[in-house]
Amino acid sequence: MSIRDLARHLDISIGTVSRALNGKADVNPETRERVLEAAKRLGYVPNQSGRSLRQGTTNTIGFMIESTIETADAGGSFFMPVFEGVQSVFRRHHLDLVALLCGTDEDPASYLNRVVGRRFVDGLIISATMRHDPRIDFLLERKIPFVALGRSATRGDYSWIDLDFEGVAATAVTRLAGFGHRRIAIGTPASDLNLGYVFLDGYKRALAANGIGFDPSLILPANGNEEGGYQVACRLLAQEPMPTAIILVNENMAVGLYRRLYEAGLQPGRDIAVIGFRESTQSRFLSPTLTCFRISLRDLGIKLAEAMLSALPAFEGQYPRETVELIWPMQLVSGESDRPGSPSGLA
Amino acid sequence: MSIRDLARHLDISIGTVSRALNGKADVNPETRERVLEAAKRLGYVPNQSGRSLRQGTTNTIGFMIESTIETADAGGSFFMPVFEGVQSVFRRHHLDLVALLCGTDEDPASYLNRVVGRRFVDGLIISATMRHDPRIDFLLERKIPFVALGRSATRGDYSWIDLDFEGVAATAVTRLAGFGHRRIAIGTPASDLNLGYVFLDGYKRALAANGIGFDPSLILPANGNEEGGYQVACRLLAQEPMPTAIILVNENMAVGLYRRLYEAGLQPGRDIAVIGFRESTQSRFLSPTLTCFRISLRDLGIKLAEAMLSALPAFEGQYPRETVELIWPMQLVSGESDRPGSPSGLA
Repeated sequence: MSIRDLARHLDISIGTVSRALNGKADVNPETRERVLEAAKRLGYVPNQSGRSLRQGTTNTIGFMIESTIETADAGGSFFMPVFEGVQSVFRRHHLDLVALLCGTDEDPASYLNRVVGRRFVDGLIISATMRHDPRIDFLLERKIPFVALGRSATRGDYSWIDLDFEGVAATAVTRLAGFGHRRIAIGTPASDLNLGYVFLDGYKRALAANGIGFDPSLILPANGNEEGGYQVACRLLAQEPMPTAIILVNENMAVGLYRRLYEAGLQPGRDIAVIGFRESTQSRFLSPTLTCFRISLRDLGIKLAEAMLSALPAFEGQYPRETVELIWPMQLVSGESDRPGSPSGLA
Repeated sequence: MSIRDLARHLDISIGTVSRALNGKADVNPETRERVLEAAKRLGYVPNQSGRSLRQGTTNTIGFMIESTIETADAGGSFFMPVFEGVQSVFRRHHLDLVALLCGTDEDPASYLNRVVGRRFVDGLIISATMRHDPRIDFLLERKIPFVALGRSATRGDYSWIDLDFEGVAATAVTRLAGFGHRRIAIGTPASDLNLGYVFLDGYKRALAANGIGFDPSLILPANGNEEGGYQVACRLLAQEPMPTAIILVNENMAVGLYRRLYEAGLQPGRDIAVIGFRESTQSRFLSPTLTCFRISLRDLGIKLAEAMLSALPAFEGQYPRETVELIWPMQLVSGESDRPGSPSGLA
């Protein structure tokens, strides 16, 4: 149902229908009433998309995330608060946020290509950056405004914000070394995510700084979810001698790791030191309490939104063009899981 | 950068540029090379949106969810697997799924109105249905294809799929009554969500069927997250005598409830019977194991996608028009949290 169909149905000129719909004064009240009634009955909706194409803007920003089976249960608890932060900024500027869901088995680069072709977004926030990420080349070549949540080895003039993975690794290793640990394992992503490389680099440098040799058998790649944490614990238990400490790169792993340790009669803090990644609602309710790192995902979302606005030509006046390259700090939250002593709660 | 701009820049007719971009044979190779090079350099992307408007379809379906601060941490673990299921069907039909994120402080009805006006979706899946939901009236009036995840008292000819909240309530109450419980509390949503009414109705009917009187002080409304579960436990502990059993309507509450009970030295199963709602990755790793209800969210997503296709005129041939009204069953998973005995694990 277009405005043309509506005009034809009413046998009134398109111009008159348009003026009636837009509340102009030069349409007589009866005609306006007829037009509005017919528009409602026939399901006419003003065509914002056509309007936007002429104006060159859709006032919609896409946030691309990957909804794979692996991350299906886990990803939401990270992204929802980020979305909330992004929206709190966009709302002031009458921008809408849509999550672009790239499914399992779909190549993220060709998905992005298709979405860009649909032209319903003015700009993009991409996440889950790979070490070499063809999406970045694609967006740069086509001059499409975007911000990356996550660094990449793919170069170019674009804004990115990333969590401080090397800082987390360095702080965790140094803390554990200070408690006397020498066999410190890490649970890393099983995929080609760039964050895995950054985390591993930080870990190696921190080992060296603390005079500890690097042992590749202590690198335990796993999926970033509860099941992955369970698998990490299985492999820890299989090692002889067992590592005395483990650092996780994903917040969802901790729950599965705890479970497997308990099954083996081991307790975090007493029998093995555990440092988790991000403090989450789950981790806050674990017993013994988990040593992990705090970040405000809502604030991260706010910063992402501001970086996006700085990349959009339409907002040049309010947000001057700027390339943001920001490593977001995370604060250690000291728990009971990595220190000897008597944890409260379940023990 | 439109095809018009590109033609002007190259000083070639729009028709020639279009034929070059579409790989037609009647353009000489040098001209084609020039056009493709300029298109890439200047960031020209074929305007699918304009094309779609003419064809009347965008091949994009919107899934509206609310990203409020309250549900920010919790909602993701439910919706991500549902999205995965929806996409597995849509992919076969070359439909893309976008999540439409209605933010905090935003009225869901006016948000929907705006999104529909933008015209980038062919159809909508709405969630978090309210007891009286103006979005349903709006979509019906405008003849926009949609499916509701959740029932509503708002009537009309539309498809909906909902979880079996009354079945869960009835099964849980009957099971607990069979174990001898008479003071059975329930943790319900603090908001006007329709599911809260359905759950409460099922609870009351099951009490009556088991000869147990209804006591309003056993209804404990709370937010559907860990913190809400913690609050429910606080209110249980404050009652004199304490209820001997609790049924939760939200899967995220269980973690917070467990935490508060442990702080009070109480253990689910031994000191109070706990039945959770949906089996989730979190609940699977709780100790003692949680009695809860299993549902395949991916299958739910598949059914939602099929109902959506049945409502889309473009798919009439493959998915005949049909109004789906489906209550999705959930299967009891018997755990250690609601029975006396010796739970394994932490006890």
